[in-house]
Amino acid sequence: MRDAYQEQMAALNAVLGEMCETVGAEMEQATTALLEADLELAEQVITEHDRLTKRSAEAEEQAFELLALQAPVAGDLRSIVSGFQLVNEIDRMGALALHVAKIARRRHPFKVLPDEVAGYFTEMGRLAVELAAGAHRVLESQDYHDALALMEDDDAMDDLHRHLFTVMMDRDWQHGVAAAVDVTLLGRYYERFADHAVSIARRVVFQATGKTPEQLTAANA
Amino acid sequence: MRDAYQEQMAALNAVLGEMCETVGAEMEQATTALLEADLELAEQVITEHDRLTKRSAEAEEQAFELLALQAPVAGDLRSIVSGFQLVNEIDRMGALALHVAKIARRRHPFKVLPDEVAGYFTEMGRLAVELAAGAHRVLESQDYHDALALMEDDDAMDDLHRHLFTVMMDRDWQHGVAAAVDVTLLGRYYERFADHAVSIARRVVFQATGKTPEQLTAANA
Repeated sequence: MRDAYQEQMAALNAVLGEMCETVGAEMEQATTALLEADLELAEQVITEHDRLTKRSAEAEEQAFELLALQAPVAGDLRSIVSGFQLVNEIDRMGALALHVAKIARRRHPFKVLPDEVAGYFTEMGRLAVELAAGAHRVLESQDYHDALALMEDDDAMDDLHRHLFTVMMDRDWQHGVAAAVDVTLLGRYYERFADHAVSIARRVVFQATGKTPEQLTAANA
Repeated sequence: MRDAYQEQMAALNAVLGEMCETVGAEMEQATTALLEADLELAEQVITEHDRLTKRSAEAEEQAFELLALQAPVAGDLRSIVSGFQLVNEIDRMGALALHVAKIARRRHPFKVLPDEVAGYFTEMGRLAVELAAGAHRVLESQDYHDALALMEDDDAMDDLHRHLFTVMMDRDWQHGVAAAVDVTLLGRYYERFADHAVSIARRVVFQATGKTPEQLTAANA
């Protein structure tokens, strides 16, 4: 019974890990669409998003099967419940990639980003993909050291996000309010994407140790 | 056993309902703090937010007890899992109210909002409070007709949100980029708050009927 649980839980986490990879790829394509005003790529992200919604529903069903069939014990229950919450996090990451693609589509054939902030988004896109890959990795490995390290990895994203505001607030900003509105929304989307990856890492710490990162740090202090 | 389940599930939904009321009150105070540059009120929202985090953790524990003790049947399982997801939605609503209060605090003693958009936020604040109260109501009543109706109620929020962009994009916008950035972020916070209230209504439909709103509409078509 317990072996069957562990096998099915690992299978669920593997599916969730693949979904992280998918939303990372979506964000990568959305970022390219944004930077290069590539309408076809933006459309592709938008079209493929439905597949993610379908896979989320399937992952939830897998979690329900685990709950219903295995009559799990307390610690296992918490891991399964994390599974549902992980689906939500990944769903939101996908929705954020979709938002980026939609802004790229809306402004086509024009580029959304003034040249002076394009570099920020190249970097934010790269970090987003890296964080999604990290989420995939820790979901599969259940390595809580790695998950704790991943939780720090969005600091770089937060720094970029903050700097972005400094650029817009500068008197030399020549691109008007419309561009600032787009850049503000886009910055928020990338920052939230990173936040969700951090939440995934946090939930993996819990799945792997039965403790929150804070409890773990207090216990080791 | 089944009676005990129903009693405890109703108790959990009552707690979640009260939490909706709390985040509604937070958003109401945050909106006033924003409109009136009221630092004390902004600080109050920020300080009291910790209480919500604590109550969320308690509500999750209640849901775990339901899962562990009641050995629930399939339909009940789904309602309990909804409970966890509802906690997340309400948490996010609280976080959004917190973001509004923080912007009000950051700009103090200045008002964040140019006069020409203040009216939009008065109205968005009112709608947010109303949606939170609606979420409270349907969680307690489990009335799925009411929940379906609530799902339409964020249309007004979406309209206001869209109009807000029109105002900023207008050539007559005299308030510069910094104000536009704040207004963009704030608009997004209120719109997301409303979205979460709609998600709560959607989950209540599921708890009450065992069907998603879409399945329900298809069945009645």
